[in-house]
Amino acid sequence: MISVEEALTHLFSLVAPTGHETVPLLAATGRVLAEDVVAGRWQPPFAASAMDGYAVRAADCQLGAELRVIGESAAGHRFDGVLSPGEAVRIFTGAPVPEGADTIVIQENVTREGAIATLTQSPGDGFGAGHFIRPAGADFQPGARLSAPRVLSPNDIALIAAMGHGQVRVARRPDVALIATGDELVPPGSAPGPDQIIASNSYGLHGLLSAAGAAPRLMPIAGDSEGALTSAFRFAREADLVITIGGASVGDHDLVGPVAEKLGLERRFYKIAMRPGKPLMAGRMAGRMGGQMGERSDGPSDGPSGHRSGGAMMVGLPGNPVSAMVCGQVFLVPVVRAMLGLPARARVQSTAPLATALEANGPREHYMRAQLCDGLLHVAPRQDSALLSVLSDANALVVRPPHDPAQPAGAPVAYLPL
Amino acid sequence: MISVEEALTHLFSLVAPTGHETVPLLAATGRVLAEDVVAGRWQPPFAASAMDGYAVRAADCQLGAELRVIGESAAGHRFDGVLSPGEAVRIFTGAPVPEGADTIVIQENVTREGAIATLTQSPGDGFGAGHFIRPAGADFQPGARLSAPRVLSPNDIALIAAMGHGQVRVARRPDVALIATGDELVPPGSAPGPDQIIASNSYGLHGLLSAAGAAPRLMPIAGDSEGALTSAFRFAREADLVITIGGASVGDHDLVGPVAEKLGLERRFYKIAMRPGKPLMAGRMAGRMGGQMGERSDGPSDGPSGHRSGGAMMVGLPGNPVSAMVCGQVFLVPVVRAMLGLPARARVQSTAPLATALEANGPREHYMRAQLCDGLLHVAPRQDSALLSVLSDANALVVRPPHDPAQPAGAPVAYLPL
Repeated sequence: MISVEEALTHLFSLVAPTGHETVPLLAATGRVLAEDVVAGRWQPPFAASAMDGYAVRAADCQLGAELRVIGESAAGHRFDGVLSPGEAVRIFTGAPVPEGADTIVIQENVTREGAIATLTQSPGDGFGAGHFIRPAGADFQPGARLSAPRVLSPNDIALIAAMGHGQVRVARRPDVALIATGDELVPPGSAPGPDQIIASNSYGLHGLLSAAGAAPRLMPIAGDSEGALTSAFRFAREADLVITIGGASVGDHDLVGPVAEKLGLERRFYKIAMRPGKPLMAGRMAGRMGGQMGERSDGPSDGPSGHRSGGAMMVGLPGNPVSAMVCGQVFLVPVVRAMLGLPARARVQSTAPLATALEANGPREHYMRAQLCDGLLHVAPRQDSALLSVLSDANALVVRPPHDPAQPAGAPVAYLPL
Repeated sequence: MISVEEALTHLFSLVAPTGHETVPLLAATGRVLAEDVVAGRWQPPFAASAMDGYAVRAADCQLGAELRVIGESAAGHRFDGVLSPGEAVRIFTGAPVPEGADTIVIQENVTREGAIATLTQSPGDGFGAGHFIRPAGADFQPGARLSAPRVLSPNDIALIAAMGHGQVRVARRPDVALIATGDELVPPGSAPGPDQIIASNSYGLHGLLSAAGAAPRLMPIAGDSEGALTSAFRFAREADLVITIGGASVGDHDLVGPVAEKLGLERRFYKIAMRPGKPLMAGRMAGRMGGQMGERSDGPSDGPSGHRSGGAMMVGLPGNPVSAMVCGQVFLVPVVRAMLGLPARARVQSTAPLATALEANGPREHYMRAQLCDGLLHVAPRQDSALLSVLSDANALVVRPPHDPAQPAGAPVAYLPL
C-alpha cells in the first residue's frame, strides 16, 4: 500500500497541461491565467486629484489666502491652462491636476464667492506639496506584471481592465468525461427496478469538477459488459481526462481495467492506505486507444503547451458514493488544478480543535466527515462510506494520519474544508 | 454617519427575493436551493453487501465450515432464491443480500473449490449477524429532507440524485445591471484619450457578482450627462438590482442621484463610517420608473415569491476602484445572498494574528488590504483607495473597528477572506 501523497505524485506524473485560449475579461473570473498580463500604460495616466476641491500652489497656502479661480478640471475634461501664483482651479476627484498646481485643498476648507476662493484652514492642517494628489503611475507603470499562473479573482479582473486589456489568455478547461458503470444504476429522474439504485456519484463529481475549473460531461451509464464499457470509452476519446466510477476493483464483474487495457491503457493500480477510497486505478490511454480510435482533435485549444503525447489520462474511482466523492476531493481537484498549470500539490489542509475525543486510527489515512461549527470540528458518529446524507451534512473532512493515536477533545487536527 | 452594520440593515430592507426556477441537477452546483428536497425512496433500497464475499447465515459461521454455493448476487442482479442452512451465495459490493442470509464473509476469509466455500476465519474475527450488511434505509428513508435555503455543494447534488431527483428548485439568479459612469471612462481594449482612464470597477464587480450567485450584465458606460444616465437606467429597467459606479457623490458632476430621482427612485443616502467606501446611495426605483418606463416582465422566474411591489433595487457605489470593490465585498455580496433567499447578514469574518504592528484607527471602520500568509496577516503599507495593484495582491481585508487602538504584532484581528 502507498500513501495518499505517493498516489498523488503518481497521478501528477500522468498530467498533461491543457493549453491556452483567449477569453473576454468578463468570462475570466475563476479561470487560471496562462500568460503574464503586462501593463502598457501608467495608472493613473496623469497626476490626479484624490478629492473634490481646488488645485493650487502650496506656496500660496496660507489661512485666509484669496485665490482667483481661473477654471475647472473635471474627470475626462482637464483644465488646459497653466496655474500662476495666486490662482486656483476647481477640481474633482480623478481629474488631472493642472500644470503649475502642486497641491489640492479640499472643498470643505474653502469658501467660494464668485471667482474668489478663500482658504479657511491653517497650513498646519494638511496643506503641502503633493497633498491629495495621486502621482502618475502610483498604481502601476508600463511593464508592471500580473504573473501567471493564478486563479483570477474579481480584483485581478479589475486590475487587468485598468491595465488596458479586454481579453486574457487562460488555461483551457480540461474536458473531463465521467463514466458511471454498473448494471444496477439508473439516472436520477427514472424509476429504478427492484435491484437497482440511482446514479449519484457522477452528478456530485460533475459539480465538484466544474467548481475546480474543469468542463465535465456525463457519459451514458455503462453496464457491466465489455461492449458497454468499450462504447463509453469511445464516446470519451476526445477528453483530456476520463473518469470511471465503479467496476475498478478486482472482482468478477470489475471490467473497467481489462477493457481499458484492451483500448491501450497503460494501467497503474494503486492500493492506497486511505479510507474511504480504494480502489484507485490510473493511467494514460494510448494516443489511438489501441489503434481502434481516431486521433484526438485539438479542440478549442490554441496554446503551444496543449500538445500531449498519448491519449487521455484515465482515473478509475471506487463506486461507493462517499468514496468516490472523497477521492474526487483528495485526488481529482489537485489533478485538475495541475492540468490548468497550477502547482502540482495536495490540497491545503487547515487545523482546528476537536469538539469530542476520537479513537486511535488504524493503518490507513482516514478522511472523516465532520462539521466545523464555531471553530470546533464535530466528527460525524457514522462514517460508513455509503452514507451520502452524512457527507451532505459535512463541511469538512478531518484527516487522520495512519496510526494516529487517540485524540482528546480540544486536540488540534488537520481538515480539508468542503 | 452610520455604521457598516446599520447600512447593511438599510440595504436588506430594500431586498426583494428573486423567485424560483427549476434547473437540471447538472446545472445546480453553487445555486441556492429554494424548496426542500424530499426523498421518495429508501437508500439503500434493500439490504446490501458492503464487500465482495459470500452471503451466509451467521449460525453457520465456524472456522472450517464448508458451505455449498448455490448462486450469485451481483449489483443489479439479485439472487432470487432463499438461503438454507449450510448454503452460501457469492455476493458483490452493493448487491442485495439474499433472503435467509444475515451476514457477509469477505472473500479473503474463504477458500473456494468448485461449489464448496470453506471458511478460513475464526468466528471471533468478525462474523456475526449484520456484519458487512448495509440495512435498507441506512442512508435515508422516504420523507428525509435536504432543507432549503442552502448553497448546493457537490455533495448535496450527489444526495439529491440518490434521492431520485433529476432537477431541483433553486432561486433565480438576480439580474444585476452594472452602470459605470463618467466622461473619463473608456472600456478595456480601447485607447483612452489624454484625460481618460480605463473602466475597471465594472469588470471586477461583474466577476464578484457572478461568484456571489448573481447574473450581472454590463451596460454601456454612461457619460456625465442627464441624457446618458437616463438612457442607461432605461436599458437597465428589467433588472432586479441596478448598480451605478461613480457619480453618486454630491459634486457638481455627480448626476446619478438627481437622474435616478427623476426616474422615480426613492433615494436613501448613507454616509457610512467606513473607508474606503463612501459615498453609498441606495433605494428602490418606482415600479414604472416615474411613469416613463414599462412594467417589468416576470422574466424566467416562475416562483410565487418572485413578485415585488416596486421597481429595481438601486445601489450607487463610489468611483474609486478600490472603494467600489470593497463596497462590493462588504455590501453587494450579502445583498445578492439575501435576494437568493439566504439569511440577511454580513459576511462572516475570521480572525488571525498580525504580522506587524498597526497604528490606531480613526473614527471610520477601515478595510485594509492584507495578505494572509502562513497564518499571519501582513497589512499592505499603501492603502490609497486608488491602488488596484495592492488589492489584486491582497487575499484578505483586515477589518478595523472605529477608534481601534494601536495593535502590536501578533494581536488577533478580524478579516474578510477575498
